[in-house]
Amino acid sequence: MNKAILQQVHERIKPYIHRTPVLTSELIDDMVQAKVYFKCENFQKMGAFKMRGATNAILSLTDSERRKGVVTHSSGNFAQALSLAAKKTGVKAYIVMPKNAPQVKKDAVKTYLGNIIECDSTPIAREEMAEKVRKETGATFIHPSNNDQVIYGQGTAAMELFEDYPDLDYVFSPVGGGGLIAGTALAATYFSEHCKVVGGEPKNADDAYRSLLSGKIEFNEQINTIADGLRTFLGDRNFPIIKKHVEKIIRVEEEDIIKAMKLVWERMKIIIEPSSAVAFAALLKNKRDYKNKKIGVIISGGNVDVTNLPF
Amino acid sequence: MNKAILQQVHERIKPYIHRTPVLTSELIDDMVQAKVYFKCENFQKMGAFKMRGATNAILSLTDSERRKGVVTHSSGNFAQALSLAAKKTGVKAYIVMPKNAPQVKKDAVKTYLGNIIECDSTPIAREEMAEKVRKETGATFIHPSNNDQVIYGQGTAAMELFEDYPDLDYVFSPVGGGGLIAGTALAATYFSEHCKVVGGEPKNADDAYRSLLSGKIEFNEQINTIADGLRTFLGDRNFPIIKKHVEKIIRVEEEDIIKAMKLVWERMKIIIEPSSAVAFAALLKNKRDYKNKKIGVIISGGNVDVTNLPF
Repeated sequence: MNKAILQQVHERIKPYIHRTPVLTSELIDDMVQAKVYFKCENFQKMGAFKMRGATNAILSLTDSERRKGVVTHSSGNFAQALSLAAKKTGVKAYIVMPKNAPQVKKDAVKTYLGNIIECDSTPIAREEMAEKVRKETGATFIHPSNNDQVIYGQGTAAMELFEDYPDLDYVFSPVGGGGLIAGTALAATYFSEHCKVVGGEPKNADDAYRSLLSGKIEFNEQINTIADGLRTFLGDRNFPIIKKHVEKIIRVEEEDIIKAMKLVWERMKIIIEPSSAVAFAALLKNKRDYKNKKIGVIISGGNVDVTNLPF
Repeated sequence: MNKAILQQVHERIKPYIHRTPVLTSELIDDMVQAKVYFKCENFQKMGAFKMRGATNAILSLTDSERRKGVVTHSSGNFAQALSLAAKKTGVKAYIVMPKNAPQVKKDAVKTYLGNIIECDSTPIAREEMAEKVRKETGATFIHPSNNDQVIYGQGTAAMELFEDYPDLDYVFSPVGGGGLIAGTALAATYFSEHCKVVGGEPKNADDAYRSLLSGKIEFNEQINTIADGLRTFLGDRNFPIIKKHVEKIIRVEEEDIIKAMKLVWERMKIIIEPSSAVAFAALLKNKRDYKNKKIGVIISGGNVDVTNLPF
C-alpha cells in the first residue's frame, strides 16, 4: 500500500461519487476554541461515505466476477451503497438484511434496485445467509468494512479533505466496522504532514477502544447505542491499520452523541446521523486537549428516519 | 431604483453576510423533470435571508440614528436578524415579540443581545408596542418587510443566484410580508435575461394571492399555517413591486408544505423551515408547467425547532 494506490482509487471512483463540501461554523469554532472542518459525506450519493468503498470494490472486480453480481450483509448504509454502486455499474446486488431493519432503510435499498434477502438479526445469521447467497449465485461477497478495496475507497474522503486543507493537526472519524477510520488513517499517513487520527466510539459499543488496549480484536457484549452504524466490530484487514496509525479512540456517552447531533442540526442546518455525531461528540467532550488546533471531522452520513428522532 | 442600487447594497452588506451556496439534487431534478437550483439562505448567518435586509437597513442609518438604536416587531427570523445585525454594527436593538413566541426564537434573540419587549400576540398590539418603544428611546423603526432598504437587502440573495446562474427561466420565492419576493423581483428585472418570478404561498394565509387578484392589499382572515414566517401581510412599499414584476402566486396546502419540507430534509440532507418549503412545494405541485426549465428556488431559512416537527 502506498500513496499511488489511494490516488488510483480516487481516479477510478470519481465519476461515481460527489466531491463533498467541507463546511465550517464560526459558532462551533468559538465553542470548541479551534478551527473545525467538517467533511460532509452526508451530502455523498445515497447519503454516506459508504458509496466510496462500495464503488471501489465493484470496480475492482474482473469482468466475469461482475457478471455474477455482488452480495453483502448490512442493515444500514452499506446496503444502500452497494445497491447504488451496483446499479450504476450494471451489476446485480444481493443484500442480506435483518428482518427487523428499519423500513426506511429497506425502501432505500429497493430504490436502488438492490435485491433484499431477509435473515434473523444476529451477526451469525447474517453471515450464514450471505454465504448461502454467494454459493447459490456465484456473486462476490463484499464485506462492508473488512475489505481492502472498501478501506481504500473510504480513505478517499479524508484524501479530499487533505487536498483542501493540507495542514490539519487532527482528523476525527467515527469507528464502527473500522473501514472509514482505517482509510482515513491511510490518507493521513500519505497526504498530510503531521495529522493525527482520532476515533470517536460510543461507550455502549466500545469494541475498538478495547481492541486497541488489548492489541487484539475485541467484540461488543452489548450494542445499545443510537449510533446504529457503529454497532459492528473490527476485522483482520482494518485492525492492523488502525493499530498502527490511529492515535487514540475516545468513547462518548449516548447523551453526548445526541447533544452533538442536535448542535450540528441547529447551528449548521445540515442533517447528520447519530453515527456521524459520534466523532464530533468526541471532540466536543475533549475540546481542552485540542485548543487552537486545526481539526477535520468526518461527517460520515445523513441517513436518518426524520420521523423518529432522539430529541 | 436601478441596477446600481442593488449592487451598492450588496457591496455594503457583504462583510456581514455569507454568500450562500446554490445546491442541486439529481433525484429532485428527476422528480421535477427540470433543473432546480436551491439558493440556500438557510446557511445564511442566523439561519435566514432576513440578515441581508436587516443589515442593509442598519447600514443605511445616519450616525445619529445609529446611536439611538433600532426597533422592530417580529416573532420570527427578523427579530434575530435585526439583533445580530445590530450587534455586529454596534447598535442597540429593541425587539417587540408576542408573549407566546416560541422559546427557541426568544433564546436566539437573546444570544444576539437583542432587547426583548413582550406584547400581546395581535398585529395591532405589536405595532402599538413598537411605536411606544420608538417614542421612548428615539430608536428608528425598521419594518421586517415593508421598508425599501430591507427589500433591497433581501434582493441580494437572488442577485447572487443570477450571478451564478444567469440563464434561469424562473425563480420561486415564498411570499410572507413581501420583502423577499419584492427584492427577488427587482433582482430578476436587473440581473437576468428573461427570468420570471413566481411566489409560493400557503392557502391558509393567501393574502398576497388575493391581493394580486384584487389589485389592492388584502389581509388574512386566518393564519392557520405551519409556515410561521408567512403569516404576515404585504405593505405599500413592496406590493407595487410585486404587482409589477411577479408573474403569479401559487397557493399550496399544508400537506404540500410538509411533504416538500420532508423531501428536502431526506434527500438533500439540509434543514429548511416550513416557510422555505412553500416555494418548493409550489413548484412540485405544478411541475408539469415547468418541465425542462431552469428554476431557482429561494430556500429562505432553516430555523426550526427540531424537537417539534410536523412529521
